[in-house]
Amino acid sequence: MSSDEQSQHIANLISSYKQGFSLPGEFYSDELLYRAEMQRIWRKGWLFAGHSCEIPAPGDYFTLNVDGDSLIILRDDDKRINAFWNVCRHRGTELCDQGSGHLGRIVCPYHQWTYGRDGSLLSCRGMQEDLDKGDLGLLFAQVRTTAGLIFVSLAEEPLDFQQADELIETMARPQGLEQAKVAKAVEYEVAANWKLVWENNRECYHCNVNHPQYIKANFDHYNTDDTSPRVQAQIDAAVARSEEKCAAAGLAISHRESGMTVFPNAQRNGWFSANRTPLVEGFVSESMDGRQVAPLMGDYTDPGVGTLRMRTVPNLWNHSSCDHAVSTRLLPAGPKRTRVRVTWLVDAAAVEGRDYQLEDIMPFWQLTSEQDWALCERAQRGVSSSRYVPGPLSTYKEYNVAGFVQWYLNQMTSDYRSEQRETAD
Amino acid sequence: MSSDEQSQHIANLISSYKQGFSLPGEFYSDELLYRAEMQRIWRKGWLFAGHSCEIPAPGDYFTLNVDGDSLIILRDDDKRINAFWNVCRHRGTELCDQGSGHLGRIVCPYHQWTYGRDGSLLSCRGMQEDLDKGDLGLLFAQVRTTAGLIFVSLAEEPLDFQQADELIETMARPQGLEQAKVAKAVEYEVAANWKLVWENNRECYHCNVNHPQYIKANFDHYNTDDTSPRVQAQIDAAVARSEEKCAAAGLAISHRESGMTVFPNAQRNGWFSANRTPLVEGFVSESMDGRQVAPLMGDYTDPGVGTLRMRTVPNLWNHSSCDHAVSTRLLPAGPKRTRVRVTWLVDAAAVEGRDYQLEDIMPFWQLTSEQDWALCERAQRGVSSSRYVPGPLSTYKEYNVAGFVQWYLNQMTSDYRSEQRETAD
Amino acid sequence: MSSDEQSQHIANLISSYKQGFSLPGEFYSDELLYRAEMQRIWRKGWLFAGHSCEIPAPGDYFTLNVDGDSLIILRDDDKRINAFWNVCRHRGTELCDQGSGHLGRIVCPYHQWTYGRDGSLLSCRGMQEDLDKGDLGLLFAQVRTTAGLIFVSLAEEPLDFQQADELIETMARPQGLEQAKVAKAVEYEVAANWKLVWENNRECYHCNVNHPQYIKANFDHYNTDDTSPRVQAQIDAAVARSEEKCAAAGLAISHRESGMTVFPNAQRNGWFSANRTPLVEGFVSESMDGRQVAPLMGDYTDPGVGTLRMRTVPNLWNHSSCDHAVSTRLLPAGPKRTRVRVTWLVDAAAVEGRDYQLEDIMPFWQLTSEQDWALCERAQRGVSSSRYVPGPLSTYKEYNVAGFVQWYLNQMTSDYRSEQRETAD
Repeated sequence: MSSDEQSQHIANLISSYKQGFSLPGEFYSDELLYRAEMQRIWRKGWLFAGHSCEIPAPGDYFTLNVDGDSLIILRDDDKRINAFWNVCRHRGTELCDQGSGHLGRIVCPYHQWTYGRDGSLLSCRGMQEDLDKGDLGLLFAQVRTTAGLIFVSLAEEPLDFQQADELIETMARPQGLEQAKVAKAVEYEVAANWKLVWENNRECYHCNVNHPQYIKANFDHYNTDDTSPRVQAQIDAAVARSEEKCAAAGLAISHRESGMTVFPNAQRNGWFSANRTPLVEGFVSESMDGRQVAPLMGDYTDPGVGTLRMRTVPNLWNHSSCDHAVSTRLLPAGPKRTRVRVTWLVDAAAVEGRDYQLEDIMPFWQLTSEQDWALCERAQRGVSSSRYVPGPLSTYKEYNVAGFVQWYLNQMTSDYRSEQRETAD
Repeated sequence: MSSDEQSQHIANLISSYKQGFSLPGEFYSDELLYRAEMQRIWRKGWLFAGHSCEIPAPGDYFTLNVDGDSLIILRDDDKRINAFWNVCRHRGTELCDQGSGHLGRIVCPYHQWTYGRDGSLLSCRGMQEDLDKGDLGLLFAQVRTTAGLIFVSLAEEPLDFQQADELIETMARPQGLEQAKVAKAVEYEVAANWKLVWENNRECYHCNVNHPQYIKANFDHYNTDDTSPRVQAQIDAAVARSEEKCAAAGLAISHRESGMTVFPNAQRNGWFSANRTPLVEGFVSESMDGRQVAPLMGDYTDPGVGTLRMRTVPNLWNHSSCDHAVSTRLLPAGPKRTRVRVTWLVDAAAVEGRDYQLEDIMPFWQLTSEQDWALCERAQRGVSSSRYVPGPLSTYKEYNVAGFVQWYLNQMTSDYRSEQRETAD
Repeated sequence: MSSDEQSQHIANLISSYKQGFSLPGEFYSDELLYRAEMQRIWRKGWLFAGHSCEIPAPGDYFTLNVDGDSLIILRDDDKRINAFWNVCRHRGTELCDQGSGHLGRIVCPYHQWTYGRDGSLLSCRGMQEDLDKGDLGLLFAQVRTTAGLIFVSLAEEPLDFQQADELIETMARPQGLEQAKVAKAVEYEVAANWKLVWENNRECYHCNVNHPQYIKANFDHYNTDDTSPRVQAQIDAAVARSEEKCAAAGLAISHRESGMTVFPNAQRNGWFSANRTPLVEGFVSESMDGRQVAPLMGDYTDPGVGTLRMRTVPNLWNHSSCDHAVSTRLLPAGPKRTRVRVTWLVDAAAVEGRDYQLEDIMPFWQLTSEQDWALCERAQRGVSSSRYVPGPLSTYKEYNVAGFVQWYLNQMTSDYRSEQRETAD
C-alpha cells in the first residue's frame, strides 16, 4: 500500500464511525491504524512516565519503553529530572538495560563512551582527535514534572503543558506525592487494545456485578437513571463530611454529583483532569474495609478527605486516598496488547510491616484492576469477530465512553488534516 | 498491494498449477491465498461443527472458533439447535468463554445485557428507554443438522444443503449418532496447511509403511496396480459376509472395489460423500485386534456391518464401526497450521469401564491420526523449500489427491470469476 | 508495495548511508531489506556449511537450514561430498529430519520414493509405468570443499571459488582439519541482525573491557593509536619466536602488525581471507592459561605456530591453534535474529578424557562468544530506537567495520544495478 492509500484507509475507517455507538472492530485490530495512533497520539502527547519520588537522589534513574523506544529518566546533579534517549551516540547501543537503578556516569558497555548525568559526552577513548564531542551528547526528550508526576513527550515540539501543570499542581499538592515512596508495583500484559482499556475505565456501568469491592467505597456506579433521592442524600452527606474536615486545610470536594466526572471533555479537547470526590460513609480510604491502612500522606491532617482522582489521556489514572495513592500507567504494545503498571505509593517515612501492610493497601485496586483486565480481554476477543457490529452507548452511563471516542477521533483527524495540508503544500 | 493486484496475484498462482502434479509451494504458505481461501471456501461452505449428542438438553451449548470468529451452538427450549455469533450486541464482548457448557439465559458478563436461548434481547438495564430491543438480538449463523452431525455456515446465503442431508441421513441413520455420546476428544495443532492434511487423507499410497494398524483392518491401500486376484477375492468375501448379515437391517456395502471411493468428485462438485465399506476378515471394528470394543450402536443388530465412512470438504471425515464412531474435524489456523479435533463416540447408554475402555476404542485412530500429522508436518517443511517443484501424482494411487486439488481450484476460481463479474458490473 | 516501489525503497535506504558512520537503523530491522539481503548476499555467495570431517564415510550426512531452505550434505560412495535439496521430487516432503546421521539410500518416509547416495531416483513403486525416473533425481546445490571446510551456494551460477580455494588450501593445509573431529558444538540464537554480529567481530575496540580472556592471548586490541614501542617489541618478539619454530615446516606468520588484518577489503571485493598471527608470550594456544590443551593437529611438530585465522563473509570465522580449532558459523533467522553454531575441533585420534578435556578447550571461545552475543543483542535494542542516529566510526579501531559496511553495500548495489539492467533490457 502506498502512503496515500494508507492515509485514505485510515480516513475511511475514521469516517465509518457512527456517533453514539461503539467503535467499529477495525479500530481494535488494524495495524495501520495502530501505527497512525502512535504518530498522532502516543508520540505527540504527554505520557505519564513515573513518580519523581522513584528517583529521589542525583544519579537515580528509571527507564521507560514506548513503542520500541527507550528513555532514561534521570535525576541530575542539580536535582533536575532529565529524559534521554537510551541510545549511545557511537553505534547506537542501549545504554541502560535495567528498569531502574543509580549511576555515576553513563558508560556505554560496548566501547566505554562515557556521558555525564547531564547527557554530555565526557570521553570516547580510541576515537580520532578531531571529533566534536559537543555534537555527541545524549539526545534529550521533553520532560515535565508536576506534583510529583513525571510526564515525557516523544515529540520534538510537545503540546502545551502549562494548563495541566496548574490544575494538577493545585489539586495534587496536598497529597504529597513528591514525599512518597513506592510500596509496590505490579506489571500486567493485557491482551486488549489500549482504547478498550480506556473505554472500560471511563464507565462504571460494569461496576455493579464486576467490582464488588469498588462499589462499596464509591458512588460512581450511580447515574441519573438510578440515583434515587436516598443515594443523592448519601452523596450530599459524604460531601458535607469531607468539606467540614478539610475546610481548614483548604481542600474541597469538587465532584458533588452522582456519576463520573465528564472526561475526556471532547469540547475542550483537554487531555487532563483532576477532582476530589467523596467516599461512601464508613470509608476513609480505598481499602477493603474502608479504614485507614497507612500513615496520612502529604498535608493531610484528617483522613476524611475523600479521594483525589487524576487522569491524563492517553495513559494515566490515579486514585489517591488520605493514606495511599495508586497510579495506573498504560503503554501500548501492539493493536491487541497493552502493558499496564499499577503502582501503590505511601508516605516516604512509612515503614512496611510497622506502618502499613501490603495486604492492606493492595487488594482494593489489585482486584478491581484484574477484574477490568479480564473484561478488556474478553471485549477484545468479541470485537475481533467479523460479525461484531457497533452497538449503542448508554446516554446515562457511557457518556464518558462517547467522550473518550470523540477525543480520540479529534486527535486522529486533526493530525490527519494537518498532514494533508503539508502534503498539499 | 492494491486489491486488484491481490486478485491478480491469486489468479496467477492458480493458473500456475499443472494438472496431474502436486500444487506449487506458494499454495501452502502464501498469506493472501490463505485469506482468499477463507473467503471462497471456509466462509462459504458448510463446516462440520460437532455432534448433536454433545448438546442433548435445552441450554446445552458448545462454541466453535473459525478464522477469528466464534459461534455459540446452542439447543433452545424447543430442542432446536441454533448458532449465534458469540458477540454481545452492546459493545461486542465475547459472551461465552468456555468451550462448552449449559446456560439458562445468555448474560453478557460486562454490562449484563441478557439474551434468551432463542437469541432475543430480554433486558439491558441502564440503557435509554427508546432503545429498540427487537433490533438487538443475537445474530444468527446458518446451521443444519443431519443424522446427528451439526454443520454451520458463516455465509449469509449458504450453499445448498439438501442433497447432502439426503445422502448422509440415509447412510448414517442406522449408526444412531444422535443417541451417542462423546467418549473422548483429543485436540491437535498440526504445523501444516489444511490442504496438506486433506491430501494426506485422500490417498492410501502412504499407508503400507506408515499405518501398520490401519492396513490390517482395511483394503484402501490396494489399488488397480496391486489388487491381485487373491486380494479381490478377499474383498468380495468381505462384501458378501457383510451383505448377508445386514440384509435384514436394510444395510448394504456400497463400496465394493479396491482403492478409495472417488472423493471429492470434481465433476459433480460435491462437497460430501458417504459409503459403507467392508473390513478385512477377522475385523468387525476399527480396533487394534478387530474385535468389538463397545456395545452395538444405533440400529445395528450384528457387528458385521463394515464401516460407514463419511467426509465433507473442507473439514470432516468420519469412520464409524458397529460399536464406535470417530469424527475428525479440521479448522485452519494460518497458512501453515491446522487445528484438528478427533472425537470418539459410543452409544449413549454405554458406561466407561463397564461397557468399554478408552484404551480399547482409541488407539486405532489415535495412532493412525498421529502418524498422519507427522507426515503432514514433514510435507509442510518440504514444500516450503524454494526448490520444491511439484511432482507427478500416481494415477493409480493418488486420483483423489488430484480430485481434491481440482475441487479446490474450482472453488477458488468460480468465486474469483463471480467476484470479477461483480467488479465489472 | 509494488516490486518497483520495493526496489526504490531499498535503493533509498542504501543511498541514505553516510560514509565513516554506522549504518542507519532500518538496516537492522527492515523486512524488505532483509529479503533483498537474502537474494543479493546469502543466496548468491558461498556459505560455510560444516567440516568434511563431520561426514568421514560414504552415507554420512548433515543438514543445513538457510532462510527456509534445507540442504542435505552427503558423502557419496566415491567419497565425494554432494549437497542435495532436502525435498522429495514426488510431493515435496522433507527427506531428512535429523541434523546429521548416516544413510544407505535416501528413502522418503511418505511414499518410499528411494534415491541413491548420488541423488538418482532408484524406485517409486505405485507410480505409472511411463514415468521418466531420470528426470526425478534429487536437485543438486553447489558445493565446494577446501582444506576440510565445506561451502555451499544456493545460487545456480555461484561466484568464483578458485581464488578462495587456493588461499585457504595453502594456509589451512597444515592445520589438518580433514583429519580432525568435532569435540563439541554449541548452538546460539542471538537476538541481533547478522550485520551487527559481523560488526562486532570486525573490531577489537570493545575487547579491553569485554574480553578479559581474549586480550591475554592476542594483540588485536592494540591499534595505531595505542601500540607503544613496548607493545610493538612484544609483537616482533612473538613473530620471531614463531618463525624460528615453524621455518622447517614451511609455516610463516603472515600478520605482523598490531591491529586486525584488513577484512573485508572492499577494494578487492574479496569475501575470504586467511592469515597466521602470533600469540602473546606464554600462549601457545587460545586456552585460558595459554598452555597446549590437546594433541598437536595436522602437520604441526611444535606448538609455537601462533593462530591460523580464516574468515569468509557472510558466515564464517575460524581461529585455529596448534592443538584445536574453533569455527563460528552464522545463519540469518530474520531481521533481528541470527543463529550461530560454534564448533570445537581436535585431532581425529585424540580421545576425550585422555588427550583433552572439554573444560580446557572450550572456555576461551565460549566466554568470548557469549560476551559478544550479549553486546550484539544490546546493540540491536539500541539501533531499533527511532532516535538512534548513525555515529562516527573510529578510524583507528573500526576500519574493518567500515570495510564490512562497504563490502555489504557493494553486494547490495551491484546486484541491484544488474537487476535494474535486466529489467531495462
